[in-house]
Amino acid sequence: MTGTVKYQLDESKIPTHWYNIAADLPVPLPPPLHPGTGQPLGPSDLEPLFPMEIILQEVSQERDIEIPTPVRDIYRQWRPAPLYRARRLEAALGTSAKIYYKYEGVSPAGSHKPNTAVPQAFYNQQAGVKRLSTETGAGQWGSSLAFAGSLFGLTVEVFMVKVSYQQKPYRRALMETYGARCVASPSEETEAGRAILRAHPDSTGSLGIAISEAVEVAAKRDDTKYALGSVLNHVLTHQTVIGIEAMAQMDMADDYPDFVIACAGGGSNFAGLAFPFIGHGLRGAKKPRVIAVEPASCPTLTRGHYAYDFGDTAHLTPLVKMHTLGSTFIPPGFHAGGLRYHGMAPMVSHLKELGLIEAESWQQTECFAAGIAFARAEGIVPAPESTHAVKSAIHHALKARGAGTSPVILLGLSGHGHFDMQAYSDYFAGKLVDQPHDEAELQRALGELPSLS
Amino acid sequence: MTGTVKYQLDESKIPTHWYNIAADLPVPLPPPLHPGTGQPLGPSDLEPLFPMEIILQEVSQERDIEIPTPVRDIYRQWRPAPLYRARRLEAALGTSAKIYYKYEGVSPAGSHKPNTAVPQAFYNQQAGVKRLSTETGAGQWGSSLAFAGSLFGLTVEVFMVKVSYQQKPYRRALMETYGARCVASPSEETEAGRAILRAHPDSTGSLGIAISEAVEVAAKRDDTKYALGSVLNHVLTHQTVIGIEAMAQMDMADDYPDFVIACAGGGSNFAGLAFPFIGHGLRGAKKPRVIAVEPASCPTLTRGHYAYDFGDTAHLTPLVKMHTLGSTFIPPGFHAGGLRYHGMAPMVSHLKELGLIEAESWQQTECFAAGIAFARAEGIVPAPESTHAVKSAIHHALKARGAGTSPVILLGLSGHGHFDMQAYSDYFAGKLVDQPHDEAELQRALGELPSLS
Repeated sequence: MTGTVKYQLDESKIPTHWYNIAADLPVPLPPPLHPGTGQPLGPSDLEPLFPMEIILQEVSQERDIEIPTPVRDIYRQWRPAPLYRARRLEAALGTSAKIYYKYEGVSPAGSHKPNTAVPQAFYNQQAGVKRLSTETGAGQWGSSLAFAGSLFGLTVEVFMVKVSYQQKPYRRALMETYGARCVASPSEETEAGRAILRAHPDSTGSLGIAISEAVEVAAKRDDTKYALGSVLNHVLTHQTVIGIEAMAQMDMADDYPDFVIACAGGGSNFAGLAFPFIGHGLRGAKKPRVIAVEPASCPTLTRGHYAYDFGDTAHLTPLVKMHTLGSTFIPPGFHAGGLRYHGMAPMVSHLKELGLIEAESWQQTECFAAGIAFARAEGIVPAPESTHAVKSAIHHALKARGAGTSPVILLGLSGHGHFDMQAYSDYFAGKLVDQPHDEAELQRALGELPSLS
Repeated sequence: MTGTVKYQLDESKIPTHWYNIAADLPVPLPPPLHPGTGQPLGPSDLEPLFPMEIILQEVSQERDIEIPTPVRDIYRQWRPAPLYRARRLEAALGTSAKIYYKYEGVSPAGSHKPNTAVPQAFYNQQAGVKRLSTETGAGQWGSSLAFAGSLFGLTVEVFMVKVSYQQKPYRRALMETYGARCVASPSEETEAGRAILRAHPDSTGSLGIAISEAVEVAAKRDDTKYALGSVLNHVLTHQTVIGIEAMAQMDMADDYPDFVIACAGGGSNFAGLAFPFIGHGLRGAKKPRVIAVEPASCPTLTRGHYAYDFGDTAHLTPLVKMHTLGSTFIPPGFHAGGLRYHGMAPMVSHLKELGLIEAESWQQTECFAAGIAFARAEGIVPAPESTHAVKSAIHHALKARGAGTSPVILLGLSGHGHFDMQAYSDYFAGKLVDQPHDEAELQRALGELPSLS
């Protein structure tokens, strides 16, 4: 038996700079628009929500953005994250493909989210902010921001989608362990929450509603700013430590990917792994096929419109141009909570429009089956979100076997599934069903897109 | 803010040999006895249960036992495990002590258990064994053996204490994800299980009963051997990779511990960290204070008798001389399921008798409070078992502040608590109570010790 091979970078190789793909774009990103005026936003429009350093990163055109020393000091606890050659999985599949995976489950929160939670907490602390508000669905982002807040002495308040709050008490306990306050959304604490509860007293919440509540709290309190776990440019930029490290590790392995595959919910995990490779290609290097994988239940990139839309339900956020299912779209229940957002990062959407990336969608049962095959071969149990990337990678590896080719496949394993064993339990009990999106619901939600688009 | 410091050994520094403390003992370990004859066991007595290579390790007097290459290849996936200087915790405590922690939660199963599960699966596969039977309480050992079995193509059958089987479906799902079969114990599948169910139809099981079932299955089936996750010499020896690495990492840090602190249930986690340091001391180096920490609810080392006793409830195992609360002792309910065993590894017990180690016991609520303080400072949420070591380390660090000394404290963090968030949830809800052992129950169980002792 050939063991899994680990490519472990020395600690001195933790990136010194994040990579900002805006610097290499052949066509600039369409600007965000003010929800009231329909005019492009200026930095000052974002000041109620974010500290200036983050706003400047959001609009920066600089290719390399220096990672502050205190942030690198914290990254050092789990970074550089390992890259593995999945030799045991390759053998189990009988594929001629080489499969590599970059593993972000080694962070204290068990996912890639701390890569941006830590710098966001740092910049807010530097700006004198005392409290951060945010939303969370499955809880990965909320627990990561709670972790980062605890390191920098910030009070963190998390609006957690009510159905998750009720069904996932363990994620809530993790946030509380880190000292954060966790509120079921919709709540009575905000106008947005109260309005929803008046209209729908039994509402179990959604990410769009929780964002509205967190944004409202930050906008109204002087000592409080808002933190978002995906979608925005600065969040995607922070995650590029993943891909920068992976590129150095592929170099150690003396290989370069033909495929770069990652799951995409809001887009930050995907961007973190893929953008450095895409940028490398834009600057003249070999271009891999770059594939964003999404759930069939919430097929933003594969079935959404590319249009200006709101990021939240109460329409408090700016309008951004993105692939969207409509801000009122409600996906059916499925286990990859991190992939339930109605929109996609504008930068990821833009790259899709430019033909620089591809998108695929898969059903959850085939993703869990792939996750179990991965766990039995490689030992690591993938988070439900990450199983989407595993499914796609196995699909392309098996196609290679058929075609007699030997492609190099790099997949992003965004986190471990230790908090998500209920989903695996349901899978084994035969309780998981595939629920593709409801076409009528999609058309209804798309019909409500702002007319501006 | 000063960040946590990581001492990351290069992959080439994964130990080549395990350390066998038997070679350095000033007084030899009392031998195990045959339960029928009361005579010392010979290797052949263990053949129904273990492959010969493991039996030879169990009785070996060689100091250094070579780690097979396929085992090192698998260790490489997560080893060398990191050692950290807990600077943020030190600052939060305001202590003059230096606190280091060796972290085993980076393994695929999230604990130290794979360190021995992998070699045990390997030696069994080499001996042509097809199936392994074992028991598990909280599920850490069962899931680790399931992981190791999946790598070597072995069928793994786990008898899981019924109350855990019912209350911890997530651990069961993890074992099933790795392809193992999980049976609630007591079960109808063994004579031992059926006997218990006849006498106590509502029995929720115990580790002692589950061991009886697993041993019976292995003894009766030609293709099946038994695997134990702690207590025995070879298991403790396999875990010494922890301490061997930690010694090299303390060297990188240019420090040497004054205290080595680890939790002890069966004793393998404690032994893994401590034995290399104790052996170093026995061979003339500086002797740190070595402290085994146990729960006040199951105070084997601090309140048990040192006597020959059975390892299981049905008295199928050999008699071993150890600190024991009596094989029929039932501890009150508490969350550190990995610390619920009635006995202690004979080798750990022997070292206690020789005065080479100390023991402490703590209540669970003070341990969880310590675990939360640790998580907020260091980011890592400790497993309930590991919080015992954290509590002790904080206790000694605060005493140092009072005394004006600056000791170097090394604590073992055996695993993360991501599977145990229910316990943290209960803590925050005020549902955790301290349940010291019942003295009458202890005296009853001690009264039933075999008369041989």
